[in-house]
Amino acid sequence: MIDLTSTIAAISTPPGTGGVAAIRLSGAQALTIADRIFTSPSGKRLAEQKAGTVHFGSIAHNGEAIDEALASVFRAPASYTGEDTVEISCHGSTYIQQKIMQALIDAGAQPAQPGEFTMRAFLNGKIDLAQAEAVGDLIASGTRAMHRVAMQQMRGGYSAEIKALREKLLHFASMLELELDFADEDVDFADRDKLTDLLKDMLRVTAQLTDSFAVGNAIKKGIPVVIAGSPNAGKSTLLNALLNEERALTSSEAGTTRDAIEDCVTLGGVLFRFIDTAGIRSGAGYVEQLGIDRTYQKLEQAQIVLATLDATLSAAELRSNLLALLQKVDGKKTTIALLNKADKVDSAELSAKESALQPLCRTLTISAKTRAGMAALEEQLVQLAALPDNLDIGIVSNLRHYEALTSARQALTRALEGLNGRLGEELIAFEIREAAQRLGSITGAIADTDILNNIFKNFCIGK
Amino acid sequence: MIDLTSTIAAISTPPGTGGVAAIRLSGAQALTIADRIFTSPSGKRLAEQKAGTVHFGSIAHNGEAIDEALASVFRAPASYTGEDTVEISCHGSTYIQQKIMQALIDAGAQPAQPGEFTMRAFLNGKIDLAQAEAVGDLIASGTRAMHRVAMQQMRGGYSAEIKALREKLLHFASMLELELDFADEDVDFADRDKLTDLLKDMLRVTAQLTDSFAVGNAIKKGIPVVIAGSPNAGKSTLLNALLNEERALTSSEAGTTRDAIEDCVTLGGVLFRFIDTAGIRSGAGYVEQLGIDRTYQKLEQAQIVLATLDATLSAAELRSNLLALLQKVDGKKTTIALLNKADKVDSAELSAKESALQPLCRTLTISAKTRAGMAALEEQLVQLAALPDNLDIGIVSNLRHYEALTSARQALTRALEGLNGRLGEELIAFEIREAAQRLGSITGAIADTDILNNIFKNFCIGK
Repeated sequence: MIDLTSTIAAISTPPGTGGVAAIRLSGAQALTIADRIFTSPSGKRLAEQKAGTVHFGSIAHNGEAIDEALASVFRAPASYTGEDTVEISCHGSTYIQQKIMQALIDAGAQPAQPGEFTMRAFLNGKIDLAQAEAVGDLIASGTRAMHRVAMQQMRGGYSAEIKALREKLLHFASMLELELDFADEDVDFADRDKLTDLLKDMLRVTAQLTDSFAVGNAIKKGIPVVIAGSPNAGKSTLLNALLNEERALTSSEAGTTRDAIEDCVTLGGVLFRFIDTAGIRSGAGYVEQLGIDRTYQKLEQAQIVLATLDATLSAAELRSNLLALLQKVDGKKTTIALLNKADKVDSAELSAKESALQPLCRTLTISAKTRAGMAALEEQLVQLAALPDNLDIGIVSNLRHYEALTSARQALTRALEGLNGRLGEELIAFEIREAAQRLGSITGAIADTDILNNIFKNFCIGK
Repeated sequence: MIDLTSTIAAISTPPGTGGVAAIRLSGAQALTIADRIFTSPSGKRLAEQKAGTVHFGSIAHNGEAIDEALASVFRAPASYTGEDTVEISCHGSTYIQQKIMQALIDAGAQPAQPGEFTMRAFLNGKIDLAQAEAVGDLIASGTRAMHRVAMQQMRGGYSAEIKALREKLLHFASMLELELDFADEDVDFADRDKLTDLLKDMLRVTAQLTDSFAVGNAIKKGIPVVIAGSPNAGKSTLLNALLNEERALTSSEAGTTRDAIEDCVTLGGVLFRFIDTAGIRSGAGYVEQLGIDRTYQKLEQAQIVLATLDATLSAAELRSNLLALLQKVDGKKTTIALLNKADKVDSAELSAKESALQPLCRTLTISAKTRAGMAALEEQLVQLAALPDNLDIGIVSNLRHYEALTSARQALTRALEGLNGRLGEELIAFEIREAAQRLGSITGAIADTDILNNIFKNFCIGK
């Protein structure tokens, strides 16, 4: 049970000591409770103050002075939660923060649960559920790309699109059900051709959104970049150079790496997940072959492949190695051929080899060991990872939304098949209602307590 | 050089991720700079808004949306710093906090130095230097007693008293110097008897304040409680029981503890520094005697002495041990005799032994091992450590103030001696000006850049 009648309080700023801290109070009794501990020099109560004003005063509890502080007054519905709200800005000692919380609880407030302010904002209709989730993502965002996706969704993102889709679906389901009621009279309320067009259009939109999850998820978890190539091409040295630390074991012996090693690093505001793999060659022993098989699996997960080559090899060997690797890589993925160990080859020879590879694939010369060319490589990676400029509908980065969209898409596909196969209205209406319900769960048009608790339990207290 | 013309900005809330964070901006350009990054939905600029109002809006930098936030507007001189001030309350992601700081710097703000907001409050005459220092103490305060002393000083504390003293001193020094100018004409502007009374009165006040430092310092560093007694009376077990951890090595062997072990713990909102010492006995070897000598030193530093006794000894032995210890303790210190190991003695016998000791000293029976009686002991300690209710002048907890007061007291003493010894006006006026100067350094009536930098460098950034 979610109780909206209580007035909740929480320390909203990060834990610890600082110059100032903020304590928020939200609910019908927010002003009354704040007035029990806060006194302004003028003696005027916060309950008498206008919304959107800040007041200096002193905070006391059981006759003991706790702090001198500022109190901001907000009134329902013009506040974050949609309820009366007081924000107390006090000195940032943990002792004072705890004392004020204790004073507020003694004055009638309930300690807020994680995310309860944002949950109330949703329950009071200030934001939809997808926006509420974006608030959590925004606070957790550690890179420019994550921040951008969360910010867009917090401002509405694809919520409007999904609400519109859902309303159209519900309307058509009603029409189909109306037909059923008048089945004896053979009336056709729903225009089948129009419905087919509508379903196709909706499928296009849901497909666009579900497809965007590959990008959205990569932004959240890191864009997968697989480092592949022949044994001893310097792949682990490259991983270490990209991560700027000694993450992978390196040696001059070919085949040092057997397990795929991966780690994340932020370059140019984008999170990358670099995956070092075992070198690919024919005639490997049993254990080495296991490693090579894993390399092929990893290549499937890659968004970008760094085909790492040993520049000291002959141009013919380089071509053959690169071709062998490109065979294993899906054409949709971006591959960059890296002529590594550039420090060991003179520049004329290097240019010749680079020219030999360029027709096959975009090529860069680097030395992971001396870091020559690393800046150019990183720049290239950041460019390749750039978000599509055209974010008109939005990028789905939330797994819950992705799953709901996938279910809706399946239901819409079944409805369309049913329509083409001249299935009964009843079954088509059922699928359409199913799709509408799945879409409704994203924005919270349909949401139960379990779903809400599950979403907000990962929020910080005070948000 | 301290530059007050710049507009400074800093993250004021504790470092890290939280629901919300606050970024403060202070200086002549605060509103103009904030308006460069903040846009309210109404389009009205913060510079046009009334003081003491809060506004919702969006923050952008170089065309990129950073956050949706609240901005509070304060105007000189009615703000913490006495300057125009904007406080931005944003989502508490470290990424967003940094982005907003960057945006403010690009818009013309300077990153604030530690304590610079409070330093400006002082330089703009909003608070005196002793109050500014109390702000730092208030944020650092971790116990009720520290908080109470800092809070009292932040609200003015002994500043008014010191300012009044200083003015009287400056007035009398002027009178004395006037006499010097008219020396040929044998005019007595300063009433010598009245000056003597005044100096005596001032000495009383400065003595009261310097004496309070023993309490003030104990509050800050912990009230020193020395655990003393015969070997194997269970002193280390008592220390561990008081600290609630295995801090000191204990064994059934007498003389286990040689070094004085000390550690702090908060009981009932008061910080105590418990000091375990080597057991006192005659006929100890060389190394043990060194430990016993250190025990005597520690007894001098004690405010409270816990005379720990082994309840299994005879009443006569207990009396003799306690008397030997009381001989070594200054009568001004509070001593509690603890009949330890109460679990090993039957209750009738224990009562008899307790009665035998009570005429000598307040006595409690405890068992540090079973924790019997520990709650009563802790309660007794908290009572003994209670701040004097009569804090009319205030408690000095700041070493800088204590040193200034001590110097002022010495100069006043010399002035009084000079007056009694009929010394020349010139020398007396010099001492009085010296005392006035020392007092002036406390409230910052006299302060140079070095002193200020030294005081504020220990503040957190953003305060």
